[in-house]
Amino acid sequence: MSTDQSPSDTGPIRLGMVGGGQGAFIGAVHRIAARLDGDFQLVAGALSSDPERARLSALDLGLSPERAYTSYEGMARVESRLKDGIEAVAIVTPNHMHFPAAKTFLEAGIHVICDKPLTATMDNAVALVDVAKASGKLFILTHNYTGYPMVRQARAMVAEGLIGRVRVIQAEYAQGWLATKVEDEGSKQAAWRVDPAKSGAGGCIGDIGTHAYNLAAFVTGLELEAVAADLTTFVEGRRLDDNVAILTRWSDGARGMLWASQVAVGNENALSLRVYGDKGGLEWRQEDPNQLWYTPLGAEKRLITRGGAGAGPAAARVTRTPFGHPEGYLEGFANIYQEAARAIRAARTGAAPGEEVIYPTVEDGLKGMRFIDASVRSSAAGGAWTAVER
Amino acid sequence: MSTDQSPSDTGPIRLGMVGGGQGAFIGAVHRIAARLDGDFQLVAGALSSDPERARLSALDLGLSPERAYTSYEGMARVESRLKDGIEAVAIVTPNHMHFPAAKTFLEAGIHVICDKPLTATMDNAVALVDVAKASGKLFILTHNYTGYPMVRQARAMVAEGLIGRVRVIQAEYAQGWLATKVEDEGSKQAAWRVDPAKSGAGGCIGDIGTHAYNLAAFVTGLELEAVAADLTTFVEGRRLDDNVAILTRWSDGARGMLWASQVAVGNENALSLRVYGDKGGLEWRQEDPNQLWYTPLGAEKRLITRGGAGAGPAAARVTRTPFGHPEGYLEGFANIYQEAARAIRAARTGAAPGEEVIYPTVEDGLKGMRFIDASVRSSAAGGAWTAVER
Amino acid sequence: MSTDQSPSDTGPIRLGMVGGGQGAFIGAVHRIAARLDGDFQLVAGALSSDPERARLSALDLGLSPERAYTSYEGMARVESRLKDGIEAVAIVTPNHMHFPAAKTFLEAGIHVICDKPLTATMDNAVALVDVAKASGKLFILTHNYTGYPMVRQARAMVAEGLIGRVRVIQAEYAQGWLATKVEDEGSKQAAWRVDPAKSGAGGCIGDIGTHAYNLAAFVTGLELEAVAADLTTFVEGRRLDDNVAILTRWSDGARGMLWASQVAVGNENALSLRVYGDKGGLEWRQEDPNQLWYTPLGAEKRLITRGGAGAGPAAARVTRTPFGHPEGYLEGFANIYQEAARAIRAARTGAAPGEEVIYPTVEDGLKGMRFIDASVRSSAAGGAWTAVER
Amino acid sequence: MSTDQSPSDTGPIRLGMVGGGQGAFIGAVHRIAARLDGDFQLVAGALSSDPERARLSALDLGLSPERAYTSYEGMARVESRLKDGIEAVAIVTPNHMHFPAAKTFLEAGIHVICDKPLTATMDNAVALVDVAKASGKLFILTHNYTGYPMVRQARAMVAEGLIGRVRVIQAEYAQGWLATKVEDEGSKQAAWRVDPAKSGAGGCIGDIGTHAYNLAAFVTGLELEAVAADLTTFVEGRRLDDNVAILTRWSDGARGMLWASQVAVGNENALSLRVYGDKGGLEWRQEDPNQLWYTPLGAEKRLITRGGAGAGPAAARVTRTPFGHPEGYLEGFANIYQEAARAIRAARTGAAPGEEVIYPTVEDGLKGMRFIDASVRSSAAGGAWTAVER
Repeated sequence: MSTDQSPSDTGPIRLGMVGGGQGAFIGAVHRIAARLDGDFQLVAGALSSDPERARLSALDLGLSPERAYTSYEGMARVESRLKDGIEAVAIVTPNHMHFPAAKTFLEAGIHVICDKPLTATMDNAVALVDVAKASGKLFILTHNYTGYPMVRQARAMVAEGLIGRVRVIQAEYAQGWLATKVEDEGSKQAAWRVDPAKSGAGGCIGDIGTHAYNLAAFVTGLELEAVAADLTTFVEGRRLDDNVAILTRWSDGARGMLWASQVAVGNENALSLRVYGDKGGLEWRQEDPNQLWYTPLGAEKRLITRGGAGAGPAAARVTRTPFGHPEGYLEGFANIYQEAARAIRAARTGAAPGEEVIYPTVEDGLKGMRFIDASVRSSAAGGAWTAVER
Repeated sequence: MSTDQSPSDTGPIRLGMVGGGQGAFIGAVHRIAARLDGDFQLVAGALSSDPERARLSALDLGLSPERAYTSYEGMARVESRLKDGIEAVAIVTPNHMHFPAAKTFLEAGIHVICDKPLTATMDNAVALVDVAKASGKLFILTHNYTGYPMVRQARAMVAEGLIGRVRVIQAEYAQGWLATKVEDEGSKQAAWRVDPAKSGAGGCIGDIGTHAYNLAAFVTGLELEAVAADLTTFVEGRRLDDNVAILTRWSDGARGMLWASQVAVGNENALSLRVYGDKGGLEWRQEDPNQLWYTPLGAEKRLITRGGAGAGPAAARVTRTPFGHPEGYLEGFANIYQEAARAIRAARTGAAPGEEVIYPTVEDGLKGMRFIDASVRSSAAGGAWTAVER
Repeated sequence: MSTDQSPSDTGPIRLGMVGGGQGAFIGAVHRIAARLDGDFQLVAGALSSDPERARLSALDLGLSPERAYTSYEGMARVESRLKDGIEAVAIVTPNHMHFPAAKTFLEAGIHVICDKPLTATMDNAVALVDVAKASGKLFILTHNYTGYPMVRQARAMVAEGLIGRVRVIQAEYAQGWLATKVEDEGSKQAAWRVDPAKSGAGGCIGDIGTHAYNLAAFVTGLELEAVAADLTTFVEGRRLDDNVAILTRWSDGARGMLWASQVAVGNENALSLRVYGDKGGLEWRQEDPNQLWYTPLGAEKRLITRGGAGAGPAAARVTRTPFGHPEGYLEGFANIYQEAARAIRAARTGAAPGEEVIYPTVEDGLKGMRFIDASVRSSAAGGAWTAVER
Repeated sequence: MSTDQSPSDTGPIRLGMVGGGQGAFIGAVHRIAARLDGDFQLVAGALSSDPERARLSALDLGLSPERAYTSYEGMARVESRLKDGIEAVAIVTPNHMHFPAAKTFLEAGIHVICDKPLTATMDNAVALVDVAKASGKLFILTHNYTGYPMVRQARAMVAEGLIGRVRVIQAEYAQGWLATKVEDEGSKQAAWRVDPAKSGAGGCIGDIGTHAYNLAAFVTGLELEAVAADLTTFVEGRRLDDNVAILTRWSDGARGMLWASQVAVGNENALSLRVYGDKGGLEWRQEDPNQLWYTPLGAEKRLITRGGAGAGPAAARVTRTPFGHPEGYLEGFANIYQEAARAIRAARTGAAPGEEVIYPTVEDGLKGMRFIDASVRSSAAGGAWTAVER
């Protein structure tokens, strides 16, 4: 178990933030995640495109006024020249800003920690991979659910062959909060998510479908090969999909289904993954993240708990508290930051980050975009099986 | 609550059985279901096509030797002429025998209670509907899961508009018992299920997929309009599908998914239904049948229990024990027999059975066959959206 | 798995019933339990002390009018002389009638199946043991919860030493239906339960506390040695306890707690048992009766399911349906009748019933009465540790 | 929802720590809790009584070498004179050090945040209350479980009368990690807990029983009046109790039971509380902390979730993430620090902290000690009802 993750012989990592001003949800989450293990210190921000809101938000967060920027371009320019400028930036804006902001910081020599999905368009996604490679800087995509210890445990168990050859992959991400037209009732969170100009071609599929896809890919280690998708908009007048039903085909002959919905009343944040192989099955639910159910073929179902008897090193390395002391969403999110910190500290010294550093990369982000793209195209083509670009 | 269901002023209904000899599973279930409320008395049987096994099985069950038949044709011929001959017959054979047996008994003037799916082929299914209509006799299909009190409750709540207009229908039926080739290891239960000659064109989809479809149709009251299906056989050498992934489109604009699997290790008999409308959601799991979860839009999730505060008359009429005293599979199955008994008793007197008698009919069986047929065709056509015949 | 339990070479057992007329709950349960496996046939009844209600109830149940008795004494006298008179009687009256009725039938040479608790007074209980012994007839007490397959499984696992030496025994039986004074609002079920003249000295402790005690004793195989009890009446004007808190000491050094309540709003029929030894733990809940949780020391928790991989012969012998097809309260109750049938059939031939017949005996009933007695005395004495008579 | 809790116009609170060096569990928890919302900055420590370990631990945590003290006395003396000395100290030592350390810091004018139980002896507890009062400084006891949002919600619901007059209080805290003699196998965590010189007169009762008591008192708002206790040591050679069974009597006529165990194999950290009143019931489990079950009398059970429809302001004020994004143990613990920060910031300006600041006080700690004391005495006196000192 690792409780204090910051060897910190050289101090916390200086972090900037783009987006995440007052009223934002995910910005606050990133800040807690960055702070939780003491690895990062937030020192600069371009927290809002609205100058006054940017200033007030920075004040709230205790930033120095001179490091409260009103544009990300300005922040990148100034900070990259400071002796103690930011080493990394967290980009927590709506999707359409991910590309220009990430490009700017990477090119300014600053590591990027970016919210998902990677970008709003396929073109941007492809371009960003090139930018990231060319920059030599780190790019960490916060597919935070892969940070949960029991997700790590599941991945390790699949890799060790404990469930044998994977046959069936059932991924779900069900929410109900968009069952009515809340975007018209003042929900800032909802408004940009249903706006194609800010979200891209996918609504529900980009916002949460990608998480489900990424989780399945992360745990199984398989590549998604094709989809047959049915994207639906149930709430009248909404411009993007709010319910997504997809048949999936994976490498090595695995088949599956993926359901994502934001109109499933009674579901809060019901991301789940069930994987069945020829030697066993694994089941995990995000709302009960400390538990992993494992059934070896022909034996009783077992409950593997975070920190408990059946949990191995892959889980232990991202575990802070003993069994029965539940860790939650913020700790899972912080695990992504913890891995990022490991990689950034290694980069400080020019050392390789060590083979064990695990985080979603810009390439994973591109795969997520290809999943969205193929699904949107399949649905537009009447649900025809559509290959996911490789 | 109805604890003693047999007014029985005219005695129990005389019942025969086709199939269900020693070693069979579902035959024994039918017998317990018939016996549980005291409405039926098993008096005759053609329990096996093997004469000696038929004789021994009848002996086990306490049948008179002279009413232990070696063929269903013989049983129909003789019993239809007896003064106290059987009034109804339970057909519990593999699928391919449903049609000839049912036809024989209906034409002999004997009511039929038949296991699902209706028949092994579409042609037989269509023909059987005609035979049943022409016969003037009752035909009850034992889609037993519709007998559960909380399934009745769910159906009533949807009908009352408590979840509003139905948007999303997620139906699942996951098992794991066919994850290996048990049909080669002496499992009689498995052997006929994976044999196209006995099961028909569908394996998993016919055996359990139809239950999931029927449950969804029963609860929502909607018609299935089209499917896009991916039927897979994972176990090498097996001739029928053992995993089924289907996108569904229903009347009134509802969309859904249906997953049925017999290779999902760790699942026992995990039939479940989740239905989401614009005013609420309902969730039910067969393995926890006494509970129904209901979330009204914008309110907390509620647990409606069989016999409890939130359960209404639709559940109460098929409830025997108070809340907290769990009823199970056999009681749910017996509820189909209970409804059948109501209908048969009414038919004895020539009266209409009363509008409230609820059981799956031959037409429901035909719809189930059309679901199988469309799914098999869709999958064969590479998953194209395929209309379900109406 | 045993699906058809009636070898029936000599026909079903002829059964009579005392109590259980229209409006009664437990009488109907006994009848279904007796009928479920086809082992018994109800042929006579003294169903009510009210002649007209007795007659109508018998008519409902399809009894011959001449075997619808208006007193149990009359029924015992007449039936014991009939060639085809009843072989066994089910006594399903309020507690105070158990003793005189049971005594009468035992002395008339008729086996007795009797509801719990054994009697309303200690004196009656002691006397009944003597009567039963002297009669040479069988006495089966329907502590029905011991009939559940997973309770049998738990008992077998403890006996096999799988949890080692038992240390801690936590037994609970929580209900909420008496949280208000329903006995004044026409609840017949409630009325006699809170009447000392009909129930005896214990209310909640006799009605459900004894079940919790009996379950703990059955599973652990230990003897209860002492109690420190706090019996409370929360509902004003009620004459018997409606909440029971007890510290328990068992043979072999085990300690425990027993809580029974009928005022715990939100609990339906929440009987549960948790047993912890020095090598493992077992947990079972009546409302989820098909599941048994087992944690071996130092290993993951395992879910043993009825009919599943971890269930052994003790469970299998009282199992009717495969895993995932839930059995419930009625099947558990029927298992007591099934065991009774085995014993009675053996008694028909004079053979010993076979060592494997398992049912709660008159001696178990006496122990239950001693548990009640000690608890009532302890509570009256301010909660002092009080030895349970041996 | 409050995501960024630190207005921080005057910067984070300077925090010191006593105990919590390398290998300690709870020290790391306190540090994360202090850091999570950005309200505190750890600047000094007397992390171990072993000088070298103190030095290395401080290095790990990034403390300045000159503020890495080798004794708490030294730290109090020096820091209290520094211009930027610590404003508060977290005491995370074994129990016997709580009193001398807390006294020293309070008398040096430094606020104290102290782990539970309050002290190792009653005398110390009584004395500490006086010291705290005299000092005019804040004393916050980290009964962290009262920080959970749904515990706050439960308390508010009881206070609002939603379950009516409280009748029954069932509190449990079950663990299994001390089922064997791990204190002899190198478990530092176990070793001091079972040592009377470090823990005090209570083992399990002081370590976790107090949490269960405190939780029940916090939620119900009632005073514990008397206990009848049975403290047992199951593991041979252990010097303190490892299983605790207590009957409880509370003010206003409520009754209850409290079970705490460290030998219940299969339990991880199973703290739970169930409270039943004459108008409803509430149930909460620490291992599923985001859920609160509420049953109004005569209605269906409802699931109130953190951030969800049924959660009110008492929960919202300590909630960081939306429904379905689970918060866990660390967030609950951080809520105590968050409240402490509110109080300390108010104290900076001399203002009252506002009536809404909620944290366990030194008086609550004294009550916890009286609970331990009465229980130990009751058990020693053979379980006699023993008044809890007031």
